[in-house]
Amino acid sequence: MNAQENMHPFDLATKLISESGVYRGNTSEAYDNMVGPFGGFIAATLLRAVLEHPERIGEPLALTINYAAPIANGEFFIKANPARTNRSTQHWLVELFQGEESIITGTAVTAKRRETWSDTEVKFPSVPDPEKVPSIPLEGSPKWVRSYDIRVVKGFPHIASENLKENDDSETIQWVQDHPKRTLDFLSLTAMSDAFFPRVFVRRNKILPASTVSLTIYFHEDDETLTSLGADPILGVTRGLRFNRGFFDHTGEMWSKNGILLASTRQVVYYKD
Amino acid sequence: MNAQENMHPFDLATKLISESGVYRGNTSEAYDNMVGPFGGFIAATLLRAVLEHPERIGEPLALTINYAAPIANGEFFIKANPARTNRSTQHWLVELFQGEESIITGTAVTAKRRETWSDTEVKFPSVPDPEKVPSIPLEGSPKWVRSYDIRVVKGFPHIASENLKENDDSETIQWVQDHPKRTLDFLSLTAMSDAFFPRVFVRRNKILPASTVSLTIYFHEDDETLTSLGADPILGVTRGLRFNRGFFDHTGEMWSKNGILLASTRQVVYYKD
Repeated sequence: MNAQENMHPFDLATKLISESGVYRGNTSEAYDNMVGPFGGFIAATLLRAVLEHPERIGEPLALTINYAAPIANGEFFIKANPARTNRSTQHWLVELFQGEESIITGTAVTAKRRETWSDTEVKFPSVPDPEKVPSIPLEGSPKWVRSYDIRVVKGFPHIASENLKENDDSETIQWVQDHPKRTLDFLSLTAMSDAFFPRVFVRRNKILPASTVSLTIYFHEDDETLTSLGADPILGVTRGLRFNRGFFDHTGEMWSKNGILLASTRQVVYYKD
Repeated sequence: MNAQENMHPFDLATKLISESGVYRGNTSEAYDNMVGPFGGFIAATLLRAVLEHPERIGEPLALTINYAAPIANGEFFIKANPARTNRSTQHWLVELFQGEESIITGTAVTAKRRETWSDTEVKFPSVPDPEKVPSIPLEGSPKWVRSYDIRVVKGFPHIASENLKENDDSETIQWVQDHPKRTLDFLSLTAMSDAFFPRVFVRRNKILPASTVSLTIYFHEDDETLTSLGADPILGVTRGLRFNRGFFDHTGEMWSKNGILLASTRQVVYYKD
């Protein structure tokens, strides 16, 4: 029996082999999107290179991933280097290559936290428990959607229906959980932060060409807290700000079931309409 | 008479000399902060390196700047390189050095826009005209504040008063304009996107150690539109999301006086309290 058979598909998909300062990985069918892999899987894999780096200090605080070109299925290489190491923060440059080509660029900050006055200003929304919300249908969805159980409280693009009326806004509120279940960590939280349908699908109630150009995530909790949440569904809330001449941005929050703001996220997305 | 005498202090401050693929700049007293220069000036100067690069295509879409270490007053060097050039988008790596040390890291995306279905979902707030709002006092402010005329509609930290009561939230709404006046462009919009007092000052009504770790701006308009707005004040709106164990994040929007969403912005900030 192969040890990999016991690994969760997400751990297998984000697995990296370190070879003289470069990390080698492979795309995984379980996280395929329409063109190339699911962007959340890519962001998580780049973060994994940082987390596995022997010189890393602290835990993830900020991550920005720029999707410069589509990844071809197969092998890729990641360079993750600390540009600057301070006493309590460390600044990383990350880049993913296929052959000689730069496909993904990014930066990350890891940090050690200390006790301070603390408070959350943004409010946890009033939502039904995940078990009271039906899972979204999988027909017509790209493969990565099958690697999650997504339950949409508000803002699902009803692309299969004949009702093509535009929605008033692009807000989505959804419960998301790994399928099969997996204990939360920084990697899965990163991927889940991108597990939203593009806002333009929701607003326009149709499928259009759309792909993330740049994604930023700020992390608010430590690894111990994430692990303590087990495999419970995470609540993702997102809304578009402005759609203009080929690009829109959205902002979002990722919450634990018990109301802890785990991360905030933002992305700018190419679209054609 | 020196030609530089006719230059606006902001153009002089962000001025770069290209030397064999590296840009040389200098910090400027007009944009000094408490420790090193004002972060908005730094972000604008890094963006200027991208804009002046001979291979650049398109206009700014996304910018992420990571403040890895304080800049010492004096000379600095910027490397700006296109990691990937596509038909309508270009992905940049930017880094600022003093001596051999990496002080600032970042990425940028420039893009060509095309006509599409467009809409703004976030609403322009109901605010008084800038001339009806008093300018903030300059006593006790760092030098860069004197390079702006800032008129706070809501959320000014009353640090000079005896009233040390905490505010209910950290939201700030402010009009901001270059002083002396200057026609808007991507560079000044970038700097203005960071011209907010740290949210923790507003919420706690006191000055604390605080400095931006990472800043992201998404741009929604083109250069022609920005220029057409002249030197009118820009409305900045921002609010903190979560303050936790030494770091908080804020999200914000930058609006023209006539209600165009010019940019959205987010940052994560170190604080001690």
